[in-house]
Amino acid sequence: MRDVVIAGVGSTTFGKHTDRSIESLAVSAAAQAIVESGIDRQRIGALYLGNFISGPLNGKEVLAGIVGDQLGLPNIPCTKVEGACASGGIAFRHAWIAIASGMCDAALVVGVETMTHGSTSQVTAALNCAMDNENDGKSGLTFPGLFGLAWRVHAERYGTTRDQVSAVVRKNKGNGLRNPLAQMGKDLTDEQIASSAMICDPLQLYDCCPASDGAAAILLVAKSIAKETSSVPIDILAAIQTRGSARIAGHPDLGTFEATVSAAERAYAQSGLGPGDIDVVELHDCFSIAEIIDSEDLGLVPRGEGAIWAAEGRTGNGGDVAINASGGLLSKGHPVGATGVGQIYEIVHQLRGTHPNQVANARIGMTHNLGGTGVACTVSILRRGDA
Amino acid sequence: MRDVVIAGVGSTTFGKHTDRSIESLAVSAAAQAIVESGIDRQRIGALYLGNFISGPLNGKEVLAGIVGDQLGLPNIPCTKVEGACASGGIAFRHAWIAIASGMCDAALVVGVETMTHGSTSQVTAALNCAMDNENDGKSGLTFPGLFGLAWRVHAERYGTTRDQVSAVVRKNKGNGLRNPLAQMGKDLTDEQIASSAMICDPLQLYDCCPASDGAAAILLVAKSIAKETSSVPIDILAAIQTRGSARIAGHPDLGTFEATVSAAERAYAQSGLGPGDIDVVELHDCFSIAEIIDSEDLGLVPRGEGAIWAAEGRTGNGGDVAINASGGLLSKGHPVGATGVGQIYEIVHQLRGTHPNQVANARIGMTHNLGGTGVACTVSILRRGDA
Repeated sequence: MRDVVIAGVGSTTFGKHTDRSIESLAVSAAAQAIVESGIDRQRIGALYLGNFISGPLNGKEVLAGIVGDQLGLPNIPCTKVEGACASGGIAFRHAWIAIASGMCDAALVVGVETMTHGSTSQVTAALNCAMDNENDGKSGLTFPGLFGLAWRVHAERYGTTRDQVSAVVRKNKGNGLRNPLAQMGKDLTDEQIASSAMICDPLQLYDCCPASDGAAAILLVAKSIAKETSSVPIDILAAIQTRGSARIAGHPDLGTFEATVSAAERAYAQSGLGPGDIDVVELHDCFSIAEIIDSEDLGLVPRGEGAIWAAEGRTGNGGDVAINASGGLLSKGHPVGATGVGQIYEIVHQLRGTHPNQVANARIGMTHNLGGTGVACTVSILRRGDA
Repeated sequence: MRDVVIAGVGSTTFGKHTDRSIESLAVSAAAQAIVESGIDRQRIGALYLGNFISGPLNGKEVLAGIVGDQLGLPNIPCTKVEGACASGGIAFRHAWIAIASGMCDAALVVGVETMTHGSTSQVTAALNCAMDNENDGKSGLTFPGLFGLAWRVHAERYGTTRDQVSAVVRKNKGNGLRNPLAQMGKDLTDEQIASSAMICDPLQLYDCCPASDGAAAILLVAKSIAKETSSVPIDILAAIQTRGSARIAGHPDLGTFEATVSAAERAYAQSGLGPGDIDVVELHDCFSIAEIIDSEDLGLVPRGEGAIWAAEGRTGNGGDVAINASGGLLSKGHPVGATGVGQIYEIVHQLRGTHPNQVANARIGMTHNLGGTGVACTVSILRRGDA
């Protein structure tokens, strides 16, 4: 497999774009990534588009072909991939494969979702398409239900408290204030968090990421042509995708996601790096407790100490490892298909040294995108090319 | 890229399976392909699932992960791909890439759709997700409208008649009678076809493929391990995917599909073969006129002579090239995500010499899967491995 680098990135703001079509968001982000890369769009050899619920919510499929058409790309394979909330990460990995395998020298990834164009009940029903509804659906256990259970497991096992989890919320909501792309950064106190509306005990309002519209895009090229690009190249050291159980009852332990654990192990093996090498991480904090579990599953924090590290500020900028300096899903928003691609966007800016909430001396970055009840996961490791 | 062979195939019947879930159809076909291959499922390194409208119609996404879970596959990448009616062909190509690139030695493809579980209006609305609705949707031009226009272009240019097009219908409906997987084989006369209900002038009832439920699956392995499999290996000589215009107004000529023309050109180049080498073809006859246009676009028939060849029986079994010996979409049915995979299933049986409607001495086969308004296309060329 050939070496692949990131040559350009683009993103819309995440938030409410009720006046814009899903295609126009995708095209905006993609055009930005193409222009930034300096690569002629006629050289792009593949397009992968990550999207989850445009079919049920917008009545729109074949979005990859539509976006490829609107961008004026050549007559290339344009493919939509879907893996619930991991759709964006899966799209990124397939663009990497297209180049690493030698099939083309440049490939475009777009992640996109619109979620504010329908009613809350429509969006909730659409999100539940990510469940194994034949098995789990009848239990009535939605995603807040699953992550509420995960919190209870973590609390019973490790004594995790409301205030420890609130430290994740305060950090990510605060980081979002420094990210102009974020949907809802906010300065919050423990009291405000603890008194916010109960969503699914113990998850309260600020523990849950918002529904969002948005798009992000990445232009990848073979390292052999990286010198033709106009940006600081970012090396892709690992691009891993795994599967976990599709059924909640299929997880032997709700305090961990096996798909994350195995994806991280393989990403470290592929890159030749270890958790201690990672400077900045964008991980899948769809709920506050998810960040704590993910940080342990990725090996960034010792098992059982995720809440302690969060409370001690060891996962903030300037801490042992900077987690979700972008604000994460909690603050940046979670336009599902865009999320995994947006994570890459954020890490690229950190490694270039151009992030609005910059982590000092960031050299190695990681992204982690988790789908459904842990049924799909991607982990990527990136490095500043001239490091 | 490494050589890849087909080691096992499976398929449900195409038709009405209103008593079965989409997952159970997918698992049935996949299990058959795995067992037939003789490959231990723990060696499978990737799963690609082609599906179009399970989200809008069934409220079910992440089907790749769910099916991988139910099959007991290892913790591997499980990816749904979507490209409207070409979803199945796209899934096949990606399994080929997974092995050809060296990422794994065995990969599973499943194509699946259910369409009889909703009302006709729900299915029609879902099918229109394959249109660029921001641009074409407001014109009211559904798919019968597009292919009705294509027929008019062909008729004006080449004098194509109702009876010539009926020859395609008679052939494919008749072939379906000899295929136990087919939804609606039928012995038809020109009079019966010409007096059937008008759908969208000049398309009448028997010119249109039915809505169907069904699944098909293929197990691919690296040629280097082909001797470990229990079936006659089928070589994959070409696996091509292209894009055409997403907008009807973006097609310079409605008498041809540019995505098919370019896919065929590339498939011939990749395989080192030409149209004259092809013995059996499964092509995308979503409407009778589509078979005529496709046969020209693929170079199998001289431009403008598709209707003449059909009327002269040159595309039947024993003719110059056997097209849709399975009955095609017209007769076999069109469970959208399954169609492209089902085409491979049919050609594999032709090349093994085990097809219920066997073409004598079939050695080289081709499949052609077209999505939306020609926005996505796949063409594959297969060869009997010991030929």
